[in-house]
Amino acid sequence: MAKIAVLGHGVVGSGTVEVLNKSKQSLEKKAGQELEVKYILDLRDFPDSPYKEKFVKDFDIILNDSEIKIVVEVIGGLHPAYDYVKAALLAGKSVVTSNKELVAAKGAELLKTAREKNVNFFFEASVGGGIPIIRPLYQCLSADKIMGIAGILNGTTNYILTKMIRDGMPFDEALSTAQKLGYAERDPSADIEGTDACRKICILASLAFGDHVYPDSVHTEGITSVTPEDVEYCENFGGSIKLIGWAQRLDNGKVAIMVCPAFISEESQLAGVNDVFNAILVRGDTTGDVVFYGKGAGKLPTASAVVADVVIAAKLDSFSNTLYWEDSGDQEFIEKYDNIVCAHYIRVSGVDRAQVEKVFGKVRYLARANAPEDERAFITPPVSEKECAEKTAQLSEGGRVLGNIRVLDY
Amino acid sequence: MAKIAVLGHGVVGSGTVEVLNKSKQSLEKKAGQELEVKYILDLRDFPDSPYKEKFVKDFDIILNDSEIKIVVEVIGGLHPAYDYVKAALLAGKSVVTSNKELVAAKGAELLKTAREKNVNFFFEASVGGGIPIIRPLYQCLSADKIMGIAGILNGTTNYILTKMIRDGMPFDEALSTAQKLGYAERDPSADIEGTDACRKICILASLAFGDHVYPDSVHTEGITSVTPEDVEYCENFGGSIKLIGWAQRLDNGKVAIMVCPAFISEESQLAGVNDVFNAILVRGDTTGDVVFYGKGAGKLPTASAVVADVVIAAKLDSFSNTLYWEDSGDQEFIEKYDNIVCAHYIRVSGVDRAQVEKVFGKVRYLARANAPEDERAFITPPVSEKECAEKTAQLSEGGRVLGNIRVLDY
Repeated sequence: MAKIAVLGHGVVGSGTVEVLNKSKQSLEKKAGQELEVKYILDLRDFPDSPYKEKFVKDFDIILNDSEIKIVVEVIGGLHPAYDYVKAALLAGKSVVTSNKELVAAKGAELLKTAREKNVNFFFEASVGGGIPIIRPLYQCLSADKIMGIAGILNGTTNYILTKMIRDGMPFDEALSTAQKLGYAERDPSADIEGTDACRKICILASLAFGDHVYPDSVHTEGITSVTPEDVEYCENFGGSIKLIGWAQRLDNGKVAIMVCPAFISEESQLAGVNDVFNAILVRGDTTGDVVFYGKGAGKLPTASAVVADVVIAAKLDSFSNTLYWEDSGDQEFIEKYDNIVCAHYIRVSGVDRAQVEKVFGKVRYLARANAPEDERAFITPPVSEKECAEKTAQLSEGGRVLGNIRVLDY
Repeated sequence: MAKIAVLGHGVVGSGTVEVLNKSKQSLEKKAGQELEVKYILDLRDFPDSPYKEKFVKDFDIILNDSEIKIVVEVIGGLHPAYDYVKAALLAGKSVVTSNKELVAAKGAELLKTAREKNVNFFFEASVGGGIPIIRPLYQCLSADKIMGIAGILNGTTNYILTKMIRDGMPFDEALSTAQKLGYAERDPSADIEGTDACRKICILASLAFGDHVYPDSVHTEGITSVTPEDVEYCENFGGSIKLIGWAQRLDNGKVAIMVCPAFISEESQLAGVNDVFNAILVRGDTTGDVVFYGKGAGKLPTASAVVADVVIAAKLDSFSNTLYWEDSGDQEFIEKYDNIVCAHYIRVSGVDRAQVEKVFGKVRYLARANAPEDERAFITPPVSEKECAEKTAQLSEGGRVLGNIRVLDY
């Protein structure tokens, strides 16, 4: 018998209790034991809930109940989530969470605590919602050296970009459409500024490369400056604009990591990922490219991933040592932003081809219908961020840089 | 220390030894112990192999060596693979295999033996090569009731169909191109007649639905009768022709399962899967659609999946009871072929629209350039296989049925 406490009764929390209840029999068969939600922690009252006698407001009741083997944290945010999770692990309880902010900020520390206490800290639901990605990465691809990861990790921004691409909407209109449909929150900044995608690529990169990548170390750009003109040029390029969180092992041993909107070739398996869907491409040295695709969020998909973790946590009686990374103490293994190299799409006005080529060398020009006479759009050769900044500054002397989006090869 | 014997030194076998050797250090860290290939079984001689002192020709040496904890079976075929695997499990050794023929024919029996002996029988590499699918299905999606699975499970046929679609090649020419490039064998029948895809969907369906589905119970059609005209009509339909292995839970509690070429809408995540790539769509009741994509075959991707299983087998000291299905003793849970319902694309000559509609009711007509005057192509409403056969027989009375391909909604 595994007794469970669920911290938080919001969207994912209520979904978790619902899935645990609905599939109780088959889950118990898989877990090889009974699974019972003993407590639900929430500061709010739920007088009409069928589970009303399980609600508690004091975390210490859970912490001090030795029957509780598994704590599910679905409160979100850093505090009090971190404090509860840390305390639960220290008390010898396994923890399952969907909280990407927590894992991105404190993953190495909490994994270390879990290992010391010989319990588990699982977070399959923190990236990609219901898409299996964490476990395939550390179990199924364990014979591979991971060379790179690139993902469409945020459904809200992917929906907005899809609207801009399919319907020619400007960003603001696409955002308000997403808000009307409930795909974007009233304060959409964590999504549209890339913060959410950044947390997720930090978790994936930490796991793939074995050293904690903190969100502060990752250059993060959102999609707020993507224009309908960029979308048109990308179509001429033969691809789609996607917000990509990516991390890549470099020849010098370091890791390049970034979140940014990017031109993705239509040949890529990421190009056809539209609407609120997510997809994560993992490039292994032996397996090649593997892509995981699905709905990256939503109450039930996320709850399903949480519950699958609960089943595995119930079965294991010791720490699962392949799901692990350390904090090496500095972020020196991360390549400096200035040195990261890729091709860029640049859009300028008031600059002629001769000037473009004087600065960037041989480029590939793109076209769109009804472009102003003095507009140029082109794909640069691979350049470092530093070079690119210097070169676009040179172009700015005579003209105006209207767009600058990276071109990624995934 | 886990000592390993690898049965078979062909493509996958030599790849397995290569990957185990190349990534020894990181694999041992993940396995928490040393991993050593002690024996390689092959009837041939490999005098130039760096592993030449490990070769044996007598399986009993392996069977009787109590140091051997894990046996890797990559011989292929049913015999002697089955005999070796069964004996190894009975001797208390875990087995890892890439042999889909073996798992499709004997999976339930071998899983039962593994459970009785409290060892493991793993076969991640048997479906999708390097694409993680078996483990995500039984671990990450364990909170889902699997409603359906549909996969592009055979790279050779997908390559041939891609050639037919992109380059307008007829089937024979596309096949011989595939043979020249080494993507198809000299005897390509297991691929082009769907046998290989059938074994794989049997494995996936057995796991998803918990009851062994035997290849003989699955209606299997290959791609030999797909024509360039069908490809043109499918383009007009707005999709691609793919060889799909699919299994679906029906409202009556039974499982519909089939391997057949199918029209797939271009909106589907399976439509963009080209060349030798594979993809598997899993439809869960809570997670919705999840797709796994990658190179489904090849020496190193398959070896990588084998080695990942070896690492997990080395770590576990008891049977992993969620990877399990039984043989209920009959195949009554499988819906009869005659009763399976879906829409069909039909191409006929010598039949006018009035006759088509008299037989099939309201249909959606398709067009292609330069079609003969008396050719009709259309999409039927959903009909059972029995009905469809009867109705096309009616059309055959006045005209000729030139094509009949199912339309699937995945």
